[in-house]
Formats: sequence, structure tokens, C-alpha cells
Amino acid sequence: MKSAVLFDKVAVIGLGLIGSSLCWRIKRDGLAKHVAGHARTKATRDKAMELGFIDSVHATAAEAACEADLVVLCAPIGANAAIAEEIGPGLKRGAVVSDVGSVKVCVIRDVGPYLPDGVHLVPGHPVAGTEHSGPESGFPELFENRYCILTPPPGADSGAVERVATLWRRAGSNVELMDPHHHDRVLAVTSHLPHLISYTIVGTAADLEMQLRREKQDISDVVETREVIKYSAGGFRDFTRIAASDPVMWRDIFLNNRDAVLELLGRFVEDLTALQRAIRWGEGETLEEFFTRTRAIRRGVIEMRQAGSFKPTEPEKE
Amino acid sequence: MKSAVLFDKVAVIGLGLIGSSLCWRIKRDGLAKHVAGHARTKATRDKAMELGFIDSVHATAAEAACEADLVVLCAPIGANAAIAEEIGPGLKRGAVVSDVGSVKVCVIRDVGPYLPDGVHLVPGHPVAGTEHSGPESGFPELFENRYCILTPPPGADSGAVERVATLWRRAGSNVELMDPHHHDRVLAVTSHLPHLISYTIVGTAADLEMQLRREKQDISDVVETREVIKYSAGGFRDFTRIAASDPVMWRDIFLNNRDAVLELLGRFVEDLTALQRAIRWGEGETLEEFFTRTRAIRRGVIEMRQAGSFKPTEPEKE
Repeated sequence: MKSAVLFDKVAVIGLGLIGSSLCWRIKRDGLAKHVAGHARTKATRDKAMELGFIDSVHATAAEAACEADLVVLCAPIGANAAIAEEIGPGLKRGAVVSDVGSVKVCVIRDVGPYLPDGVHLVPGHPVAGTEHSGPESGFPELFENRYCILTPPPGADSGAVERVATLWRRAGSNVELMDPHHHDRVLAVTSHLPHLISYTIVGTAADLEMQLRREKQDISDVVETREVIKYSAGGFRDFTRIAASDPVMWRDIFLNNRDAVLELLGRFVEDLTALQRAIRWGEGETLEEFFTRTRAIRRGVIEMRQAGSFKPTEPEKE
Repeated sequence: MKSAVLFDKVAVIGLGLIGSSLCWRIKRDGLAKHVAGHARTKATRDKAMELGFIDSVHATAAEAACEADLVVLCAPIGANAAIAEEIGPGLKRGAVVSDVGSVKVCVIRDVGPYLPDGVHLVPGHPVAGTEHSGPESGFPELFENRYCILTPPPGADSGAVERVATLWRRAGSNVELMDPHHHDRVLAVTSHLPHLISYTIVGTAADLEMQLRREKQDISDVVETREVIKYSAGGFRDFTRIAASDPVMWRDIFLNNRDAVLELLGRFVEDLTALQRAIRWGEGETLEEFFTRTRAIRRGVIEMRQAGSFKPTEPEKE
């Protein structure tokens, strides 16, 4: 039987949903002898120690990363360059630097140049999450049965890649290797565009009452925000969940995967315009045909066991 | 203590998710002495009897509705006019006709003219559902803690309204009365637009591989359908669930709530275009500000206990 311990010291920089979940898993399964943590705010650092998912907390990223065998960057990706610049000089020879960001080309661009010779960069992306953020939101099962995509740059050290892959496998994930550019295009479809659309529709709904009160004479034309919330079980509520994700994290994702998101958005708007036209012209067959062929994709998601568990009823206690 | 029995005979026309769930609830709690059912296809009628959520099955709607105290139309709304024309002449004096459709002005328009004097129309809409359809998908708790909106036309019989309201309250719902036109505008926001958007994005993703194989030279630009499914836990999977709803039901909803859906779609596309521009110009502050203010709506949905229960992990057994 293999020893559980994979690393002497892991440093996790950024202790939100993903960072804290990774720490919990490492602690639960004894995957490292020591987990050092850093977060930007003192409130998060104190909370992390109080909850107990790290062994030591550090006021700077450089201090946390010092002597670490593995450093995992878990802050919003816009912060990566500054963190890499800060920790780079103090990294141990042979250390591995990884991350969990949802865009990968930019990680290689932002982090790579700051790493000294003999330190290995293995960018990673656990495709997992909830709508919650912050150090209280983590739990060790988050990565169970999810995919974790590693995007090592050309010429990456295969030993380093294997060590990061083993960590994620032990965290419950299926590990896949992918070209970073390709990763960013795939995730634009499966994650970035869905979030953009969700934020948009919830924003549209949030503005509606104010707009309608200005525009409409007839009070029965005015849809109130209170009503939007109350009758949200018709579908809208699912968008509110996705649109509750961390705003800074998502700002950085869109700024760093611009081309893929904009290209896809163009296709989406074309399709939406075609359906809009079908509704205006009363073309029932076009609508029915379109609505029918999307079902095969859903079956695929369920068969791949990536659907999660949604219950339409409320939890017993909240 | 009040007697559980509210009706001697209820006829349910259309035995899909909503129809069968209503039947299950009526049977479970003894809300009617007899539940008669009709469905268009023999397969559904047979399945309904086999599952046992109706007491009698009928090859025609007219036969099922004969002598009923309450008839509930649960077929896709495009079928309502023909069903009303068929059952109208045979309805018992004092009978109440209701429905469960997601658009209400059209029900009054389509059904009203076929009802004889002394028969009361009380349109209803339980704001509840899952992505599953068909007679196997029903369960008696579907309406628990959900809202049911009744939209009686002007001058409706108050006793008839109260009887329908009592049925839904006994089914676990919070009953609200609303102007039918206003209902259709509210539901365009909370249900119709979210479904249209979900169908569109799943459709865009379904076409992508084929489009990209034609357009792109570089294989790393081609996102495969297989990959879209595999990495769907990043947000896309939730859209696939919504887009798995019944295509005919949704075709009829869009055809019958055209003006409200198109008006709202115009606002949505405006907002989406503004975000698209912010991404193109790298306006991080605009994005962050937009992504932040949508969180208040989510808090409202949770506080109103309309959020349902989503677990990001897979169910133990499927």
C-alpha cells in the first residue's frame, strides 16, 4: 500500500471555496505533512485557522510558500502575476507551482516568467464548484468524481506533472491533460458563457421593475422584483444560483479569456436571434425541433455522471 | 376537522409531470372520491393505470370529463381549444374547469368560449416542475411549498375560485390570485426567458463541434461535444437540465406568450451586449459591479424558500 503523504509541505495561496476545499481534503486524507495558508485579508486568515483546515497561516504569500514542495495558487487569476513575482525568489529548488484557475493560457503567461530555474509550473483546473465563496464554504468532497484538467506547458517536467496529478486523484478527481489554449476554448463553452448568461439574465430581471415603472402606464405591465423572486421556481432560480458566484473571480476570468468568450457569444446571439424570429413569426416547428435536439446533450451529462443532484423541493432545514 | 374530500369526481386531461403529480396528491390525501384520467396516447393511458394514480382511464377527454365536478387541463396549452370544444357540451352544470398552463391569457381566450353557462373557468398555474416529463415523472410532493397562481377572469364565480384554491392549498401550495395579463408578464421573466436562454445555449453547444470542424484549421480550436459533456460541471450542466424540459409544452408557451417574451428578450440582449462590450474593452470595473449586484436577488430567492436543493456531488445511485 502506498503511503498517503505526497508532500512534506503544501502552500495554498488564496483560501476561498477551492483553496479551503483542497486544504480540507489534504488534511482529511493526510496527503501532506504540513499545509501552510495565505489569504489577502486578515479576516480570512483568522477564519482559516479557526476552522482548522491549515496548519499554519502567513501574512504574506512569500512566507507561506517558503520551503514548500508544492504551491497552489487559489486566488482570482488576476492576482497571479503579483503573487508569482512575490514568491518566485524564495521558492525551493524542485518545488512545483500549480493553480486552480478557470483560464490556463494566462497562468503560463503571468506566472511562468517569475519562476526560477528548477521550479516546475503545472497549471491545473478542478472543474468543480458551488455558488458559495469564502473560507467557510469549503468541504473535502468538492472534487469527488469531478474532472481536474492539467495543462503543463511544452517541456514540463513529467515528474512534477505526475505529482500534481496524484494529488488530484487522491482528492477524488479524474485527471486529464490538455493543451492550455484548447482548455480555455472548452471552458468558455462549459463554464464561462453559462456564467455570463446567468449574470446577464439576473441583472436584466433586477433592473426590470425600475425600468417598467418609468416606461409603462398600466400597472399590470409592471413586474416587481418581489414577484420575480417569489415565482422563481419556474426556472429563474437556477440562474440566480450560478449568478451568485464570486464577482472578482469572474471578472478576471472574462478579462483573461476574452477571445474565446466573445467568439462563442457571437454564435449564441445568432442562435438566440433565430429563435426570437421563430417566436415572432409563430414558427412552431422550428421551435419544437430546436427544443428536441438539446435533450441528447442532457442524457450525455447524466451518463457521464456530471449532473449533480437537484431536488426541486426545499431542504428540511436551512 | 374538515373532511379531506373536496370533490366527488375530478377529471385530469393530460397525464404528464404536472397532471400525474396532481393525481398522486389527490389520491394520497383523499381529496376526491374518484380521479378520472385521459391522455392522448394509449401508452400514457396504460402507464397511468399501471402506476395507479387514477381510478379510471378514458380514451376521450369528453368521457373523462363527463359528470366531473372539476376538470383540470394538463396538456400542452396549444391543445386547450380543441379539448375545450370536445368536453364543453358534456360538462355538468356547476362544474369547474381549471388548468395548469404557464400562460394564462390564452387559456381564457381558448377555453372560455366553449364552456356552457353554469360552468366556471378558473385558470391556474402551479409554479413547480422538474426537467422530467411523462406519466412516470410525477410525485405527490411536487407542489409542496411552491406558489400556485390562479387567474380568474373578471366576474368569475367566487365559490368556484375558492374550491380550486382549496385543492392547491391541500396539495401543499401557497395560492395567489393574479390578473392573467400580469401573470404572463411575470412568468416571462421567471420561467419563459430562462428556458429560452437555456435551450439556446445548449443548442449552440450542440452545434459547435460541427461548425468548428468546418471553420478552423488548428485542431486545438475544435471543441468536441464529448468535451462539452465531460466538463459540464463548470455551469453548463444546469442549463442542460432546464433545456431537457418537454419540447411541445415549451413550443406552445412561446407561441402563446410572444409579446412578453420578445419584449424581455430585447432587454436581455441589450444587457448582454453591454457586458460583451465591457469584456472586449477590458472594463473590469463594469463587470465586477454588474456581477456584484445580482447577489441580492439570490439572497431573496433563498429567503423566500424557493431555491430548491442543489448538491454539487452525484447521487449515490442513479
